[in-house]
Amino acid sequence: MKKKVHHFINNNPIFLKFIYGLIILNILAIILASYKEIRFNYSQVLENFELFSVVIFSLEYVIRLWTADVEYKKGSAFSKRIKFATSAYGIIDILAILPFYLPLFFPFDLKVLRILRLFRLLRIFKLGRLSKSMKTITNVLKETKSELSITVFVAFVLLILSSTLMYYFENEAQPEKFENIGQALWWSVATLTTVGYGDVYPVTGVGKILSAIIALIGIGFIALPTGIISSAFIDKVQTDKQKKIDNMHICECPKCGAKHEKNVI
Amino acid sequence: MKKKVHHFINNNPIFLKFIYGLIILNILAIILASYKEIRFNYSQVLENFELFSVVIFSLEYVIRLWTADVEYKKGSAFSKRIKFATSAYGIIDILAILPFYLPLFFPFDLKVLRILRLFRLLRIFKLGRLSKSMKTITNVLKETKSELSITVFVAFVLLILSSTLMYYFENEAQPEKFENIGQALWWSVATLTTVGYGDVYPVTGVGKILSAIIALIGIGFIALPTGIISSAFIDKVQTDKQKKIDNMHICECPKCGAKHEKNVI
Amino acid sequence: MKKKVHHFINNNPIFLKFIYGLIILNILAIILASYKEIRFNYSQVLENFELFSVVIFSLEYVIRLWTADVEYKKGSAFSKRIKFATSAYGIIDILAILPFYLPLFFPFDLKVLRILRLFRLLRIFKLGRLSKSMKTITNVLKETKSELSITVFVAFVLLILSSTLMYYFENEAQPEKFENIGQALWWSVATLTTVGYGDVYPVTGVGKILSAIIALIGIGFIALPTGIISSAFIDKVQTDKQKKIDNMHICECPKCGAKHEKNVI
Amino acid sequence: MKKKVHHFINNNPIFLKFIYGLIILNILAIILASYKEIRFNYSQVLENFELFSVVIFSLEYVIRLWTADVEYKKGSAFSKRIKFATSAYGIIDILAILPFYLPLFFPFDLKVLRILRLFRLLRIFKLGRLSKSMKTITNVLKETKSELSITVFVAFVLLILSSTLMYYFENEAQPEKFENIGQALWWSVATLTTVGYGDVYPVTGVGKILSAIIALIGIGFIALPTGIISSAFIDKVQTDKQKKIDNMHICECPKCGAKHEKNVI
Repeated sequence: MKKKVHHFINNNPIFLKFIYGLIILNILAIILASYKEIRFNYSQVLENFELFSVVIFSLEYVIRLWTADVEYKKGSAFSKRIKFATSAYGIIDILAILPFYLPLFFPFDLKVLRILRLFRLLRIFKLGRLSKSMKTITNVLKETKSELSITVFVAFVLLILSSTLMYYFENEAQPEKFENIGQALWWSVATLTTVGYGDVYPVTGVGKILSAIIALIGIGFIALPTGIISSAFIDKVQTDKQKKIDNMHICECPKCGAKHEKNVI
Repeated sequence: MKKKVHHFINNNPIFLKFIYGLIILNILAIILASYKEIRFNYSQVLENFELFSVVIFSLEYVIRLWTADVEYKKGSAFSKRIKFATSAYGIIDILAILPFYLPLFFPFDLKVLRILRLFRLLRIFKLGRLSKSMKTITNVLKETKSELSITVFVAFVLLILSSTLMYYFENEAQPEKFENIGQALWWSVATLTTVGYGDVYPVTGVGKILSAIIALIGIGFIALPTGIISSAFIDKVQTDKQKKIDNMHICECPKCGAKHEKNVI
Repeated sequence: MKKKVHHFINNNPIFLKFIYGLIILNILAIILASYKEIRFNYSQVLENFELFSVVIFSLEYVIRLWTADVEYKKGSAFSKRIKFATSAYGIIDILAILPFYLPLFFPFDLKVLRILRLFRLLRIFKLGRLSKSMKTITNVLKETKSELSITVFVAFVLLILSSTLMYYFENEAQPEKFENIGQALWWSVATLTTVGYGDVYPVTGVGKILSAIIALIGIGFIALPTGIISSAFIDKVQTDKQKKIDNMHICECPKCGAKHEKNVI
Repeated sequence: MKKKVHHFINNNPIFLKFIYGLIILNILAIILASYKEIRFNYSQVLENFELFSVVIFSLEYVIRLWTADVEYKKGSAFSKRIKFATSAYGIIDILAILPFYLPLFFPFDLKVLRILRLFRLLRIFKLGRLSKSMKTITNVLKETKSELSITVFVAFVLLILSSTLMYYFENEAQPEKFENIGQALWWSVATLTTVGYGDVYPVTGVGKILSAIIALIGIGFIALPTGIISSAFIDKVQTDKQKKIDNMHICECPKCGAKHEKNVI
């Protein structure tokens, strides 16, 4: 029976659609509650919906905890539960309902409560269970992790260098906009990522030249991660193809015992 | 004779150029009519041109409907017509002339008429019949549909998360610019896509840090679809090459035993 | 002797460096002449330098015309000269010196003269003769010409559609900024290319949603040409490699006469 | 014993972590010192920390100079030291501590001192020794050097052309913003790199059309280096794979005659 429940909450299309619908409605509720008129006029509706959502998500969490021994193969019944509770989705599931329960036990002041309510946003990650094709992208990103982290490091060096130089160049001309390196960093990020809000920009000649160089490097900075991710995707596509071919005509070599592609002669 | 007409409207270079010219002139007319001086001084010319265009496009539609049984192989004469009328281009063709006919039958008020006139814009899609090489791009995009839709989903999650957080961070400092999450979303899109209009940007420290992170993620967000589309294009190019090789005749060299492409002499 | 001259102007490193240096100085002169103080204080220097440059470039043009029969293999002496004069570089060479000679023969008014002087900018293209590795990029771009032109067409359709819709949405709210579709096009380009100057942006709800969609499509619009160009570059790299391999161990098959990679047995 | 010291400063994880930590703290100190309140209230702490850092970095430099004969194989003891002192990291190491020592020997005025202090920023490059995977990216960039430099040249031509034209178009309408070609260049860079600060943009019709064209070319300009870098990365991944395959032992199957990877049993 436990297996049936486990299968139901993971595969029953109607249940899944209900949960995903509920998650999307929850996010919509957070967005709508930010509108003053809605927050005041429909506060009761929003509160009731939150109560309803928490009940459902709590039930889901309890059932997932209970059926954890179907999910995981190895370990004792208790260690399986711990495994689920400390898994990425297990943590998300508990954090997403925690902001409702915590204030019942601890007397928080308003500010802490407000931050706690932000945890409700984590419900959006529950949508991640949805997609199996998301794994492709996650795998590709994982494979390129070391090269992408170098890109991040290069970006960090570029940002620090350019913002420090810009601070020295522009501090006198625009003391209120380039008051310290922290504010110059804000300009650096906006330029290197080519966002360019236009709230801060250099006005001195040297500053403009540095800005131009950083903006042009920004183009290369976009090219680098793109090239890395592209190559990983292409490698994946080709490996998948090779696997297909490898699975087609297989022959076992009696000499060395290796399985290899059959040479059709 | 029906076959000749069908061939004529689909392949006659002079007729095709005439239609494409007419479509481009129609789009030009829409653009020009938006200029007050032109709208007032040349209203008669524009109206006559619209009448002329609608007559041509209506005739084209009727002929395409009539010759639908040459276009489609299977089904009865009536079902072939329905097939054309419900095809993408069939719907575009009728919607592009509808704004002219509907007001003749139904008494619409001005607002509805104005929206109806927007349908004339659909005539631009009639240009799509033009290009056969457009299929390459459409096919590549179709193949990467599932991965690209994941990118869209990730973008959606990023937008919701960042705009909600930004609303909490900036609401107090800039209540008129970050009045609700909807307005924060506007900032999110401008930052993640690196457009950066500069009408809304964070002013608090935490807000600026979040903005910097979102802008840097925006770079990766550009890299992802680019990598996906690149890999699909490369796969296509290689598959095309492989097909060419597979279609070539293979010969075994008696000198060295290698299998190689046959040289047709 | 003509061959020696032809070889000299095309291969002598000192002469080439002199010409490239002169071109770069010419461009610098155009930039410097745009500064009021320099234009007034050094007008004589700039005029003399222009005179000197035109003499050199005219001599170069005459010599290239004279040695055209070494450059081109086929045709009569006259047709070879015409071939050079009508080649891309031949046209650039004459247009780059024309703004000096024309006013000597025709009495132009000041406005025409000013435009004529812009032709001096064409001298920058004379630098193109410089690089032999530029051919790689030009070839790759040529190979992807049909797909890239489709991208341009898609961009054109997106720009027209979004600007027309935006004109309808924003015209009432911002009549001075979205006065006609032409002005809305300016916004479209800034958004689709993610430049986002911030001088024009939507203020209505519907307008903002359309703007967000266009900005997000802009990301894909960047991805498309990148993917196309990437695939062409990769194809080139692999074709070059294959050629190297093909040239390494070659065997001629006595059966069919084809040249193929040797199978080392 | 010298070998042990050399091994210690290059491989001892605790020493390396200490140095990297110190570098990061140094960069943090530079950033913090730009904040007026911190600079005034904690000047003693910052000075002491600078003294401490310089002592450590000086010691490190001396040790590296002393152990240079372990690092380099060939040459005399003296030439090995020169080799280290003139290597990229050797120059960075000395420049990063120089701003401390120079003022002790030479009486500089304040302005020179301020610029000298900027050299402390070079300490960030000492972090580069850290990463071995950074070599992958550096190698890829080196391989594509000639093609990337062409991209830079094309960018240079585009920037000069567009800024000169824009200067002619906009000078009359906005004399203070497009006063000379230098200022127009600032607009060119912001547009071609799609940064778009929004401080300078064309207002005339022709100017806007030129700006739109440059922005659209900007998209292609992003696509070019991305394509080049992508292809280099993919080539690298495939070469690595090929090397693996080439290093594997090949066996011929007596069953079907195919050559395949030997399964080491």
